Amino acid sequence: MRVAFQGEPGAYSEAAVTEHFGAEVTTVPCEAFDDIFAAVTTGVCDYGMIPIENSLAGSIHRNYDLLLKNNLSIVGEHFLYVNHYLIGMPDANMSDIRRVISHPQALAQCEGYLHTLTGVKIESVYDTAGSVKMVRQMGDKSVAAIASRLAAGIYEMKILAEMIQDNPENLTRFLVISLRPGEPGSDAKTSIVFSLINTPGSLFKAMSVFALRDIDLTKIESRPLVGKPFEYFFYIDFAGSILDPVAAKALSHLEEYAIFMRVFGSYPRHRYS
Amino acid sequence: MRVAFQGEPGAYSEAAVTEHFGAEVTTVPCEAFDDIFAAVTTGVCDYGMIPIENSLAGSIHRNYDLLLKNNLSIVGEHFLYVNHYLIGMPDANMSDIRRVISHPQALAQCEGYLHTLTGVKIESVYDTAGSVKMVRQMGDKSVAAIASRLAAGIYEMKILAEMIQDNPENLTRFLVISLRPGEPGSDAKTSIVFSLINTPGSLFKAMSVFALRDIDLTKIESRPLVGKPFEYFFYIDFAGSILDPVAAKALSHLEEYAIFMRVFGSYPRHRYS
Repeated sequence: MRVAFQGEPGAYSEAAVTEHFGAEVTTVPCEAFDDIFAAVTTGVCDYGMIPIENSLAGSIHRNYDLLLKNNLSIVGEHFLYVNHYLIGMPDANMSDIRRVISHPQALAQCEGYLHTLTGVKIESVYDTAGSVKMVRQMGDKSVAAIASRLAAGIYEMKILAEMIQDNPENLTRFLVISLRPGEPGSDAKTSIVFSLINTPGSLFKAMSVFALRDIDLTKIESRPLVGKPFEYFFYIDFAGSILDPVAAKALSHLEEYAIFMRVFGSYPRHRYS
Repeated sequence: MRVAFQGEPGAYSEAAVTEHFGAEVTTVPCEAFDDIFAAVTTGVCDYGMIPIENSLAGSIHRNYDLLLKNNLSIVGEHFLYVNHYLIGMPDANMSDIRRVISHPQALAQCEGYLHTLTGVKIESVYDTAGSVKMVRQMGDKSVAAIASRLAAGIYEMKILAEMIQDNPENLTRFLVISLRPGEPGSDAKTSIVFSLINTPGSLFKAMSVFALRDIDLTKIESRPLVGKPFEYFFYIDFAGSILDPVAAKALSHLEEYAIFMRVFGSYPRHRYS
């Protein structure tokens, strides 16, 4: 079984893959999120693991847009606890550090800690584990990366500071994507996207189809509807499976209001705590 | 009158300032969005102009977070049509270009165009106008920037391609922030933020206070509530002023459900088309 993830070996996404599927799967690193969707669409990989939301930094909107652009199903979710480390050259000390590089999400999650470092320049790069690889290649002890403990180990680098995220409750929710729909099981979630006629109260009506049936919405996200300024696609996750008659009725009711609707899939809910 | 904006001279934000306030104001460039809030809070500037949403790339979440962190009022909004240009050294031609640099939002807005350029590396930098300045300083004719026509003029550079955004309907909504509340006038919008107890249907109830009074919601955005994974702050813009008795009733009704609520301000609606 081959599972695509974004980033270099040692990325948090790779940890999510092995936690979710077990250590025996083959993990396939991809440069960009687009490449994950392509690898699954073409059958090069069986599954893709995409980050969709972080509890500190918010949604990863690019992946919402890619879910809509591609024709894949969501077949699973996985919550990963994210602990960040400041990682430098083996001979580096904290007093050497003049520049910190990492993925923008990781930088955002360590914002408070980074503000305590004076005279240090912050720079975005494309990947957390990749930032460790870059420091190793530069061989510059004035540069540090922010990444996982795993990445420090892979590239044989020194951990300068541990657990530097501003908030210990740092969780990332991942979605598992596949060419074919999965098995939702008895404790499921469903993800959908829809758009509405832009009239007062239209979103309220759309949400009523769930509220009137006591269906719990676990997430609502809006993304721009390109070509119609300040109209939106709404992405909703709710508790339940499209195999439940009540959820099916809610979606049939929603279709009365929506000018577009698509179900990404129903999948087993991950209970992480 | 001094108005802070983010970016280098020639930034789209500076164009928004002069369109909104007129050419006679003093525009004050700031490196980061945080600096705009600081300049207004300390009285160094009378107003700040912050981008909050683009019709193609979506919300600028950092500024939602900063509105909550700071204690400033929203006193105006401004919609700016954003037209992007590919800008190179005066002696550069399209066939020379191997690298394109710009702000991530600008790169996202030109994604389709950039995909048509083969063998070209894309790189994020902190600012659109700043990317033009960087190309000028490097003096490298294999690098091009994406920015405004204004920025090409300021740095005396060559326009290699015009209007390269994927969609002609490329608009950015800006907010004007100030230490003191403004005058909403008769055609107003109001911006608020609130959080709710995390129970099924809570957001639906919150939205009902507007729907039951036929108040039009023009935007809803959610941002993570740090420390409570997968709970949210909801930001809502609605048509009307807190001076309207109906809107005031709606907010008083919302306070029955919300565990936190703050009004950023009521301000004149900008009718841009």
